[in-house]
Amino acid sequence: MHQQHIKNIAILGSTGSIGTQALQVISKNASIFRAYILTAQTNADLLIEQAQHFLPAYVIIGNESKYADVKAALAHLPIQVLAGSQAIKDVVTEPAIHTVLTAMVGFAGLEPTIAAIKAGKTIALANKETLVVAGELITSLAKQHQVNILPVDSEHSAIFQCLAGEENNRIEKLILTASGGPFRGKNLDYLTGVTKNDALKHPNWVMGAKITIDSASLMNKGLEVIEAKWLFDVDVDRIEVIVHPQSIIHSMVQFEDGSIKAQMGLPDMCLPIQYALTYPNRIKSDFKRFDFMDYPQLSFEKPDLKTFRNLAIAFEALNQAGNMPCIVNAANEIAVASFLNGNVSFLGMSDIIEICMQKISFIGQPILDDYLNTDKETRILAQSLITQTPSAMITI
Amino acid sequence: MHQQHIKNIAILGSTGSIGTQALQVISKNASIFRAYILTAQTNADLLIEQAQHFLPAYVIIGNESKYADVKAALAHLPIQVLAGSQAIKDVVTEPAIHTVLTAMVGFAGLEPTIAAIKAGKTIALANKETLVVAGELITSLAKQHQVNILPVDSEHSAIFQCLAGEENNRIEKLILTASGGPFRGKNLDYLTGVTKNDALKHPNWVMGAKITIDSASLMNKGLEVIEAKWLFDVDVDRIEVIVHPQSIIHSMVQFEDGSIKAQMGLPDMCLPIQYALTYPNRIKSDFKRFDFMDYPQLSFEKPDLKTFRNLAIAFEALNQAGNMPCIVNAANEIAVASFLNGNVSFLGMSDIIEICMQKISFIGQPILDDYLNTDKETRILAQSLITQTPSAMITI
Repeated sequence: MHQQHIKNIAILGSTGSIGTQALQVISKNASIFRAYILTAQTNADLLIEQAQHFLPAYVIIGNESKYADVKAALAHLPIQVLAGSQAIKDVVTEPAIHTVLTAMVGFAGLEPTIAAIKAGKTIALANKETLVVAGELITSLAKQHQVNILPVDSEHSAIFQCLAGEENNRIEKLILTASGGPFRGKNLDYLTGVTKNDALKHPNWVMGAKITIDSASLMNKGLEVIEAKWLFDVDVDRIEVIVHPQSIIHSMVQFEDGSIKAQMGLPDMCLPIQYALTYPNRIKSDFKRFDFMDYPQLSFEKPDLKTFRNLAIAFEALNQAGNMPCIVNAANEIAVASFLNGNVSFLGMSDIIEICMQKISFIGQPILDDYLNTDKETRILAQSLITQTPSAMITI
Repeated sequence: MHQQHIKNIAILGSTGSIGTQALQVISKNASIFRAYILTAQTNADLLIEQAQHFLPAYVIIGNESKYADVKAALAHLPIQVLAGSQAIKDVVTEPAIHTVLTAMVGFAGLEPTIAAIKAGKTIALANKETLVVAGELITSLAKQHQVNILPVDSEHSAIFQCLAGEENNRIEKLILTASGGPFRGKNLDYLTGVTKNDALKHPNWVMGAKITIDSASLMNKGLEVIEAKWLFDVDVDRIEVIVHPQSIIHSMVQFEDGSIKAQMGLPDMCLPIQYALTYPNRIKSDFKRFDFMDYPQLSFEKPDLKTFRNLAIAFEALNQAGNMPCIVNAANEIAVASFLNGNVSFLGMSDIIEICMQKISFIGQPILDDYLNTDKETRILAQSLITQTPSAMITI
C-alpha cells in the first residue's frame, strides 16, 4: 500500500453504474478511501441505502422533490443532507475532499466539474460529456489550477496508463478500440427495425442505458474521440477508431518511434475506477484476471462509418470544433432519451443530430454561457423535432 | 529531439543481425549517435566495410588470425585496430563511450559486459546468454555500479517499455509471447525428421542462425524466461509464456491491480535497438508502421512443453538456479552448433542438454570463476557426447 492518508472521494452520481462500482472499490479499500460525498439525481432509495452503509459527510439528492424522503431516512445519522444542483457545486469544493469522481450522466456534469477544478480537486472523470461539450474550457481551467484530470472511461484510462512514463515522448496516434456494440456487422436495413431492447444488449459491458444506446449507435465512440482529443491534446487526424469485438485491448498509443503500447484486461470498469483513485500507484485487487485461454483470438476490423453515421458525425463535429460538439451532445442526449421512450427510431437519432448541427448557430470560440445556451437551444430544437414529427418519419 | 550530445556507442558484434541493424539506426540518426567501437568475431570483410563507412575510433576483430587483414584494410583511416577478446574487455571501458550494445552471440558476451558495467557504461543488452548464465552476478554488479541494463530483445524491451512510469507498482505476472517458431503445432514424430533448413525458416523474424534454431526448439523462449527473471527481478512462477504466432504483441506485464500493459508492433528489431539507445526518450523513426488491417486476427495458445522440451528444461534450470542455467546454456550452444553442422538431430539437442544437467557438478552459489569453469566443462562434455555417439543415437 502506497497511500499514507485516507483519500476523501466525492462521488457525483453514486447510484449509477460507475458510482456503484466506485463504491465497491472504496468498500474493498476502506483503509485508503472514504466516500465523502454521495449524490444522485433521482434514485433516492439507493442513495439512502448507500448513505446508511458508507456514512458520507454529505448526501445530495438532485431532484429536490425527493429531499424530504432522503432527509427523513438519514435523520438519525451524522450526515448532512442537501438537495439540488447548486448544492453539488457548493459541496465539491469542501477542503477535505481529495478527488471528485464525476459519474453523473450527460451535460449535468459540466458545472460541478468546473467548480471542483476551481477548488483544486483532482478530477476522476467518468462524465465524458464534460469534455465533449467544453473540452477546451475544461482543460485550460485544469492547467490553470494545476489539477489532474484522470480519465475513468476504460479507453481513456487505457491510453492514460500507456502514457505513464512517456511524458516527454510524442504521440503519433491514439487508437481507440470499440466493441462495435450489438449491431456490429449489420446494415442500414437491419438497423431500421431495431428496438430499444435490441440496442440495450451490449455484448461485453454492463453499463447505464444512455451509454449502452450510444455504444450501439457508435456515438459513444464518437464522444470518446472528442474526449481523447482534449484529454491528450492530440489532433483529430491522429485519433483512430478500430473495432475490436472482444473488448480486451481497451485502447492503444502509438509513439513517434512507431512503438505501440496497449492496456488490456477483462471488461470491468472497477479497474479504471480504482486506477483513477490510486493514480499514480496501483493497489492489489481481487478483480477477475484476464486469461488468454478464454480469448484465444482477438480480432480487429474497420468501423463502418456509413452504417454507423454517429461516429462520422462526431469526427465532423470535432473538425468544426467551437460549440459543434456541444450541439451534437445535446441533440444526442434528447435523441437517446426519445429512443428509450419509443418516440424515435434507432436511425432517426442521427437525423435529429444532423438537423440540429445545421440549424443551431455555430459559435467558433464559445465561453461557458455559450455552451449553456447552445445546450438549452439544441435540446429545445431536438425535442420539438421529435414532438412535431410522427416517429415513423424520423428515419434515414 | 531530446539528446543534447552525441552518444558514443560500442557495438560488440557489429556484423551480426543486431549489430547491422544497430548501425542502420545509428546511420539514420547520425546527429545523435556515433558508432565508437565496432567488434566482430570472424566476419572481417563486413567489419572492414562497416569501419570504412562509420569511421569508429576502434575496430576489434576477435579472431586474431584475421588481424593483419583488417589492420591493412583500415591502415589509411584514423581507426585503432585491435584483436582478441582481451582487447574488447579493455576498450569498452573508454571514457568516451556512453552505451555498450552487447550483440555478440553466446557466452562470449559475459566478460565484456562485466567490464563495461564496472566502467559505469549503460548496457544495451542483446546478448541474452549474459543474464542466462550469470544473471545474479550481473544484476548485482549493475546495481552496485548504478548502471542501467536496457534490454534489446523484443520481448524484454516490450516489458521494459510497459514498466516505464510504473516503478512503484508491483508486477503480478510477466507474459512473454513466443511465435512458436516454424514447428508450432507439430508433434514429436514430425520433429524427429526435421532438418537444419526446416528449422532455419522462422515465420516472423529474420535473425542469426543460433537464435533461429533456439526459436524453433523454444530454447530461445526458455533463455528469455531466465533473462526476464533477472532483468525484472520476478520469481519464476510469475513468468508465463504464451504462443502468439503473429509476433505483434511483443510481451506484456500484468500489475497487481490486474491491469495488463502490452507493447506491440511489427516484428522489427530496429525499434527495440533504437529504444535502448534513446531511452528514456523516443525519437521519430521511419520504421514501417503496424496496421491492424494487415493483422485482423491475433491469436494465442498455450506452449506445448511436452513436444518442445527445451522450454520445460529452461524453467527447470531456473527453478534449480545456481550454475544450472549456465550448464543449460553451454550445452545448448554446443548442441545448436552441432545441429547446424548436421552432427545431432533436432530432438537430440534436448538429450544433450539433459545429460549435461545430470552430469555436471551443481553449484548453488557460483562466483564468476565457477561460471567460467562450468561453461568450459559443459562444452567439453556436450562435445564428447556428440563426437562419441553416432548422430542417429542422439534423439528422443
